[in-house]
Amino acid sequence: MQDEQPQNIYELETPSVLIDLDRMEANIERLQAHCDALGLAFRPHVKTHKIPAIAHMQLAAGAVGIACQKVSEAEVFAAAGISDIQIPYNIVGEKKTERLAQLAMYNRVTVSADHPRVIAGLEEAAARYDMTLRVMVELGTALQRTGAATGEVVALAERIEKAEHLHFAGLLVYPSTEQERPRIQAALKALHEAGIGVDSVSGGGTGAVQDAAKIPELTELRVGTYVFNDWNTVTQGWCEIDDCAMTVLATVISRPTPDRAILDSGSKTLAADRVADGHGHIVAYPQARIYQLNEEHAYVDLRDCERRPEIGEQVRVIPVHTCVVTNLHNQIYGLRGDAIEAIWLVAARGLVW
Amino acid sequence: MQDEQPQNIYELETPSVLIDLDRMEANIERLQAHCDALGLAFRPHVKTHKIPAIAHMQLAAGAVGIACQKVSEAEVFAAAGISDIQIPYNIVGEKKTERLAQLAMYNRVTVSADHPRVIAGLEEAAARYDMTLRVMVELGTALQRTGAATGEVVALAERIEKAEHLHFAGLLVYPSTEQERPRIQAALKALHEAGIGVDSVSGGGTGAVQDAAKIPELTELRVGTYVFNDWNTVTQGWCEIDDCAMTVLATVISRPTPDRAILDSGSKTLAADRVADGHGHIVAYPQARIYQLNEEHAYVDLRDCERRPEIGEQVRVIPVHTCVVTNLHNQIYGLRGDAIEAIWLVAARGLVW
Repeated sequence: MQDEQPQNIYELETPSVLIDLDRMEANIERLQAHCDALGLAFRPHVKTHKIPAIAHMQLAAGAVGIACQKVSEAEVFAAAGISDIQIPYNIVGEKKTERLAQLAMYNRVTVSADHPRVIAGLEEAAARYDMTLRVMVELGTALQRTGAATGEVVALAERIEKAEHLHFAGLLVYPSTEQERPRIQAALKALHEAGIGVDSVSGGGTGAVQDAAKIPELTELRVGTYVFNDWNTVTQGWCEIDDCAMTVLATVISRPTPDRAILDSGSKTLAADRVADGHGHIVAYPQARIYQLNEEHAYVDLRDCERRPEIGEQVRVIPVHTCVVTNLHNQIYGLRGDAIEAIWLVAARGLVW
Repeated sequence: MQDEQPQNIYELETPSVLIDLDRMEANIERLQAHCDALGLAFRPHVKTHKIPAIAHMQLAAGAVGIACQKVSEAEVFAAAGISDIQIPYNIVGEKKTERLAQLAMYNRVTVSADHPRVIAGLEEAAARYDMTLRVMVELGTALQRTGAATGEVVALAERIEKAEHLHFAGLLVYPSTEQERPRIQAALKALHEAGIGVDSVSGGGTGAVQDAAKIPELTELRVGTYVFNDWNTVTQGWCEIDDCAMTVLATVISRPTPDRAILDSGSKTLAADRVADGHGHIVAYPQARIYQLNEEHAYVDLRDCERRPEIGEQVRVIPVHTCVVTNLHNQIYGLRGDAIEAIWLVAARGLVW
């Protein structure tokens, strides 16, 4: 039942995830240039695409390496020949730390930790393989997710430094918005006073890109979403609509009333994320509002639209959160204009550990 | 880097999706018995699991066939030897209707339609293959999703009846809650008065299971979530906690404050769905509240917990919406007690059309 590979957008079925290659390449160049101008190492976060081929484009543009969120993701990218991999995450559990150590024997792998117990697990795995693991200390921020309190940073760094099989690889912060600078400065001052050298200070977050200029302490920036952009980054004012490289090609499958259209793209296609005006932006019908999703249905309010789509019409939707969209699809399509130039398998999705 | 297959829960990495087989089998038996007692044909909706092996268990228990939501899903289940497949969806677009017709030449495939334009597309595809497609008319409900108005049903059924290559296969309703009975009765009365025979009246929805007894017009019920159940069905009062067959095995990876834990299961694992008390239920810590998700992080509020988990502890989470969880994972694990009895690939996930 396998079709021949589609050559252009008109041969695609819906829902399909499309990447405008011109826009993606411009996004890659723009953020790399921004970091270059600031003298910052740039480390794209590949959770957004989970596709080694795109990571290679980011590296070719000047990125120093990649960041990813799981050991299983790191293994996929390492197998694709990418060796400088940061996992800004507490890797916890014997099997995970063991695989991390195996990976780090042949690649420049760096992880983070926010607690002595996490460090102890890393130390044990590294000792078992008689190798050295690179470990950063994660500083907690106003986000209140993971991360150590400022007052705990020195003790954690010392613990890493003293461990025979660990190397203290610097300070990690997410998100590195301007308001976090005092905290970063306090942590660095304490480390300096304790006589602990800091290899790097890694910041991150799409919303922190502009703020990077205001935190000269940073040596590195990790950003994911910029490569595609999405309706959230537009809504936040972080990019323009024309910077959005990802759209979901959808079909109008029902028009039950004059004011309502239903698309064949629901939460299993667009993901359930929403911003104030709904679940995404229909490019050809900017006044339409995607007000609800079921698994395979998007509910569209057409009240404010003069022109309205008919059953069978295809539309392109800019999704709210691109990172979770890629993760829902086996493959995505790279388009140059209307021509399909690449069909990428989303290689690192759906993995367990 | 491939591990040997895990034999029991203690060999699993996190996050992993676990299915308690005793509970799943009990769920399958219970709903089948409910439908049998009502004299209703039961047609499980396989969008919940997307796994042919589980569909075969549902059929073995007495189901008449399956429902699924996409042609690509139907193809996967047909390839696994399941031939009675209903797709309660407007199949729109030349490629999709063509594949539908191909599938329906060798399987008992039934679709629905809510508009003459949808019917015209089906007719064209069926004519091209000189075969007959079975088409139900979808009646709109208070849900205000797809579905024709009651007054349009006769014209749509007549249109199907008159088409040389289509067969009118009955009336389809979602959700078939008690409040929809007058609408169903009105549609059936109009069809009767127009002299149009109605093969079946298919209702659906987890929330409509109990109501089925109050709508004797129904001949068939489609339900998906019942096979696993989830925190939403518990919260709605549709099942007990002990009926939940699916849990997500997660690890506590951070304890930044006494009141906060972070799990390694975020929106790429649990999906972003939430109910009033959060993003799921931690079985061993019923007072804990999952108040926020990022892609790979669950934020847990421990304020109301006397006992609190440490870093490294594994917990089992009942997710809010099981259908979207399965869809995020390459495989899920069937457990008998602590032993892994099945590793199922989620065969029909991530497909395009």
